[in-house]
Amino acid sequence: MSVLVVGSTALDSIKTPWRENPRLLGGSASHAAVAASFFGPVRLVGVVGDDFPRRYLSLFERRGIDLEGLERAAGKTFHWSGEYEVNMNRRRTLKTELGVFETFRPTLPQAWRRTPYVLLANIAPELQHHVLDQMVRPRWVIADTMDLWLNIALKPLIRLLRRIDALVLNDGEARQLTGEDNVLVALRKIHHLGPRFVMVKKGEHGAIVSGPDGLFLAPAFPLDRLVDPTGAGDSFVGGLIGYLASQQGSIRRNLRRAVVHGSVVAAFCCEGFGLTRTVKSSMDEIRFRVRALEKMTGF
Amino acid sequence: MSVLVVGSTALDSIKTPWRENPRLLGGSASHAAVAASFFGPVRLVGVVGDDFPRRYLSLFERRGIDLEGLERAAGKTFHWSGEYEVNMNRRRTLKTELGVFETFRPTLPQAWRRTPYVLLANIAPELQHHVLDQMVRPRWVIADTMDLWLNIALKPLIRLLRRIDALVLNDGEARQLTGEDNVLVALRKIHHLGPRFVMVKKGEHGAIVSGPDGLFLAPAFPLDRLVDPTGAGDSFVGGLIGYLASQQGSIRRNLRRAVVHGSVVAAFCCEGFGLTRTVKSSMDEIRFRVRALEKMTGF
Repeated sequence: MSVLVVGSTALDSIKTPWRENPRLLGGSASHAAVAASFFGPVRLVGVVGDDFPRRYLSLFERRGIDLEGLERAAGKTFHWSGEYEVNMNRRRTLKTELGVFETFRPTLPQAWRRTPYVLLANIAPELQHHVLDQMVRPRWVIADTMDLWLNIALKPLIRLLRRIDALVLNDGEARQLTGEDNVLVALRKIHHLGPRFVMVKKGEHGAIVSGPDGLFLAPAFPLDRLVDPTGAGDSFVGGLIGYLASQQGSIRRNLRRAVVHGSVVAAFCCEGFGLTRTVKSSMDEIRFRVRALEKMTGF
Repeated sequence: MSVLVVGSTALDSIKTPWRENPRLLGGSASHAAVAASFFGPVRLVGVVGDDFPRRYLSLFERRGIDLEGLERAAGKTFHWSGEYEVNMNRRRTLKTELGVFETFRPTLPQAWRRTPYVLLANIAPELQHHVLDQMVRPRWVIADTMDLWLNIALKPLIRLLRRIDALVLNDGEARQLTGEDNVLVALRKIHHLGPRFVMVKKGEHGAIVSGPDGLFLAPAFPLDRLVDPTGAGDSFVGGLIGYLASQQGSIRRNLRRAVVHGSVVAAFCCEGFGLTRTVKSSMDEIRFRVRALEKMTGF
């Protein structure tokens, strides 16, 4: 079944102490759509400017990502630039130029409104609402967010929580949203706000997933070299929903393996700048790492 | 089979923003011995002063911990006092009074020298050597350490690594010992220094165990209330070796479940001040939490 992904499509310029990488393909929707595309058809809702490289459109197309909902507007593509410190633990934003994203207000193609799986990747909660308003009885909706929206758009975000099946956020954001240091207490508070499934990402420490079948302590795939974690969270949730949409049977039954598949795709993302390593991965490699994680976690 | 534990036996005074807890039973050997005693007989090597409360000796005895190697010296028991901040993430040492521990140089009871399982809990590496020198062909030796010894006794610690089967340390200490930020690279470097098994503790994020059967990503039992993490690391390694010594079959086969049992005992430790919660736990509770962790990690 298809997955609809809405979020940002951007150009990312990423500096590390060793390298500069100008105008990589980036943005929450780009990472999530590419991650989901390993498993099945993806519909991408976003906007790019007239400076958006043709080769990135081809990349999406080669992966079977439908671009009918990708608006091409006059102006500049959303451009983010940031810099990593030596140990890769801290990222500093150097510049954020919204460009055509500033006035983005997508209208979904008619045929896309009944897409069963919906990923509201990290964008302004108002835009997430706007897309959800156009959907007709989706089977499963997951939303991602970030600290920025907790700071400047908390109310629409809280309203969104009543409309979605699952929320993904990182541990710091869970603390900020609930005022709770303890992750289990924070999870309970977030469930009360609406979502049946809540997933707290902890980077290299994996994720904690809370749902009707209790907790799932999901592993992260251990890497001996971290190149660029930008987009790892988006890849996680993209891989997760892509896998879910590709499987028969109930979501509850498939969710844990979906999370592990998301985790594996996120690890690929971290092994290269932007999407460079992810797009070189294969389903065989993904399956191999999922099996490796099974071996590394069984007792 | 028996486990020999050597380390510190102390009185801990622990302040939190809400409570003062003077002169709790503490020290690396106390926590480790109590944790190991859930699974079988334990021999405790340590020293206490004449101020050591009789009730703590009774506590050890009631748990079947043999005290023949616990020296009672004239003077004061090792006393540590510390303070936690509001979020329990940072601990500050207020006072360390070594007392009788300053001149501690244990001579093991003759009958104890052939104990098959040896835990060199966190004490000065020179003392760990001194105890190991007295052991006759132990089956399995695991050592714990701390940042202090990396700072002031690195050479004897490095020498120790060639004499032990397994090393336990936390992620910060692994970084300090190897100069490596990446935990997988750090693990490889530590293996090169000697131990066949290396276990990196990550607190609430579990542990990474590296050995001849590859990596094991061990979960921590999630807690909704952290009362006092003092001694959690000691409980982890104590529970681990206690479980190992209680099982038939090869160490390689039993190690993962041993780690999980250690992790569960460590979680009990965190739920009360000092050893107060640990000593109220039962084997049934431990088994229940191990099963719960199986359910929380399977996929």
